[in-house]
Amino acid sequence: MRLRKRSDALDVLRAQPELVPQQPETTCGQWSKGSPLHVELGTGKGQFLNQLAEKYPSIQFVGMEKYESVLATAVERNDGHEQNLRFIHGDVAHVEDYFSEGEIDRIYLNFTDPWPKKKHAKRRLTFPTFLYLYKRVLSPTGDIHLKTDNEDFFTYSLMSFSQHGYHLRNLTFNLHENEPEDNVRTEYEQKFAARGQRIFRVEAYPANEC
Amino acid sequence: MRLRKRSDALDVLRAQPELVPQQPETTCGQWSKGSPLHVELGTGKGQFLNQLAEKYPSIQFVGMEKYESVLATAVERNDGHEQNLRFIHGDVAHVEDYFSEGEIDRIYLNFTDPWPKKKHAKRRLTFPTFLYLYKRVLSPTGDIHLKTDNEDFFTYSLMSFSQHGYHLRNLTFNLHENEPEDNVRTEYEQKFAARGQRIFRVEAYPANEC
Repeated sequence: MRLRKRSDALDVLRAQPELVPQQPETTCGQWSKGSPLHVELGTGKGQFLNQLAEKYPSIQFVGMEKYESVLATAVERNDGHEQNLRFIHGDVAHVEDYFSEGEIDRIYLNFTDPWPKKKHAKRRLTFPTFLYLYKRVLSPTGDIHLKTDNEDFFTYSLMSFSQHGYHLRNLTFNLHENEPEDNVRTEYEQKFAARGQRIFRVEAYPANEC
Repeated sequence: MRLRKRSDALDVLRAQPELVPQQPETTCGQWSKGSPLHVELGTGKGQFLNQLAEKYPSIQFVGMEKYESVLATAVERNDGHEQNLRFIHGDVAHVEDYFSEGEIDRIYLNFTDPWPKKKHAKRRLTFPTFLYLYKRVLSPTGDIHLKTDNEDFFTYSLMSFSQHGYHLRNLTFNLHENEPEDNVRTEYEQKFAARGQRIFRVEAYPANEC
């Protein structure tokens, strides 16, 4: 993501405490309000979640984003879905501070930074340390939906999932070839699709522990 | 594989009992001769194994093939590697009759029939029933090396492996882009590569049971 620093970003976030809880860790364990809870990690400018929140009013959505400058845009774009959409200004590495064990029903990872250099592998959001965190906050029947245009990040992620306690399903190397009716395109996805680039997608779910 | 029926096929196989044991089940547990044992399932005309046998004289190779007409060609092409190459005329579904538990160090699945129709899924050599069989005959540190040009068969296989007790490694969607020095091309692979088709490859290894 190309970042344009916004000096007003934190003010924008603070002005919407309903949408961006100021102390999100105090909501830990209480996000779902009795509904399924779906969380996008690295939610960027929020287009994807805004669409989902409108489409599925009975699901609670939370977007996590560490860069306040993009999150401010997500907040400004919000079309009044405060009832079922909130954002957390925070780092995925601390996801356990914000969500309790088994609280999340679905995690979305959409076009997250591929960190192509090997020395940056541990920053990839499918690095084993992250997969362990996700397993703790995911419900036993929860899953992770991942989309990316980056082939190397995708192959890396498939291996990482398979080696660290996840099974794979609904795997495709070309999502738009037979695009599912319920696919919601992200901002990146629209751009890549317009260029004719392949979109890779997979669902990973926790293997049964024995 | 396009099959040309050969009426002399069984005679060709019977004429080489050292290369094609007539009662392979009696060799069960004794194939390795103290060396690593690598087995290709659906070995076809044997070009791949003939090359490997020449390249790695300290490894014992066995090729399984159920169609006698193609296996006859493999036998005729054998360049005198009887010391470390043998063939079994038999069906992969009966692999446990020919190999004892944990006997095999590596299984090769090269361009096996993708059986694209859903109703034929159980014939794919990465269908769960086969993966369970492989796990029994593979050593605990053994692995499966799979290559294919068929994207749907490949995605199917990745999911099947991950769901049925295998981890994935060395995954690539374009083997020839950075072709490893030790890659041995099969007959199909040469043909597909000449057409510019992508070759998919993965290694799957048994997950540690707990």
